[in-house]
Amino acid sequence: MDVAILCFDDFTDIDVFLMWDLLNRVEHPGWRVRLLGDATHHTSVTGLTIPMHGHVREAVDAAAVVVTSGPGARAKLADEAYLGALRLDPGRQRVGSMCSGALLLAKLGLLAGKRATTYPTQRERLAAMGVEVVEEAFVREGNVATAAGCLAALDLAGWIIEELAGEEQRAVVLRSVQPVGRGLSFASDQRLPTRIYGAAAGR
Amino acid sequence: MDVAILCFDDFTDIDVFLMWDLLNRVEHPGWRVRLLGDATHHTSVTGLTIPMHGHVREAVDAAAVVVTSGPGARAKLADEAYLGALRLDPGRQRVGSMCSGALLLAKLGLLAGKRATTYPTQRERLAAMGVEVVEEAFVREGNVATAAGCLAALDLAGWIIEELAGEEQRAVVLRSVQPVGRGLSFASDQRLPTRIYGAAAGR
Repeated sequence: MDVAILCFDDFTDIDVFLMWDLLNRVEHPGWRVRLLGDATHHTSVTGLTIPMHGHVREAVDAAAVVVTSGPGARAKLADEAYLGALRLDPGRQRVGSMCSGALLLAKLGLLAGKRATTYPTQRERLAAMGVEVVEEAFVREGNVATAAGCLAALDLAGWIIEELAGEEQRAVVLRSVQPVGRGLSFASDQRLPTRIYGAAAGR
Repeated sequence: MDVAILCFDDFTDIDVFLMWDLLNRVEHPGWRVRLLGDATHHTSVTGLTIPMHGHVREAVDAAAVVVTSGPGARAKLADEAYLGALRLDPGRQRVGSMCSGALLLAKLGLLAGKRATTYPTQRERLAAMGVEVVEEAFVREGNVATAAGCLAALDLAGWIIEELAGEEQRAVVLRSVQPVGRGLSFASDQRLPTRIYGAAAGR
């Protein structure tokens, strides 16, 4: 079961990396998280270069796809080769966006006449694409969801995890990143993701 | 003014990347964020490989240093070459740790007899090093601070930003990553980091 995170040059760091980290905490048979782009590596808006696992055309095979954000997302709105390679089907996939990634979902026709959210700086542009833009952190319409404000990644990742791996995995993953004393405790009977924290954490 | 983030192989992704993103949102004369390690690249616990900007020995020149976390932090406790190269001086630097990075601060003698926090799985090990471990998200003792639970990165980054770049920068940066409708709004008079969101966001 693949979950794909779509990247491009000039991506907003945290919108890729927080999603990547959260989704990699899931323990579920066949679960695999992949970064997909249209080059072997992509460089973030702050200049950090990371390798991709595959091409954006492979998103069609994923159980869930997250479109990330940043100036690079806006550039892709005019990239016909990229848009032609990106095939998403909410009929059989969960599809989500972080922040300005919603513009790409709108461009692909997935938000027509629907409610959606985006980063404050992009709300007028998204509205101009025929979308009902609402001031909410997470908006779900069937199998398509939009999240806005970097930490709303927890809402979007949580939705994907619950849909594909169940409610308990969602709870385990989201608890594991909370601050100590504010959601995460020193209690020893607390289950944590074993991939990150070792087998002893899986009790 | 350099802020250094210390990396190693098997680092916890989000403890490096959230700090990296937050610190890169700061607008302050000479502000520069650098990833320091003991190789040209390091690979996270999930398998993501990123390039370093310099060697850990350069941490001595930074205004603030953040020690990150993960299985790799524990491995460095027994790496004499690494420990010998890592010189930190809270007399003239702000020094902080995320999660199990506190073990390295303790190993360097920076937490002796002090209050500190760490990830739940590492609390007994940290206590065995002569540290008073408390169940709190962020603990500051003078120029040394420990944070635990991934999202406590906001507390640690916020402290460093306020100390080095001022209270307004702290507010601008931390607001910019909040979820829409929960700290970040659609109001157009809201100042946002221009490096990430463009000049128009800096109003």
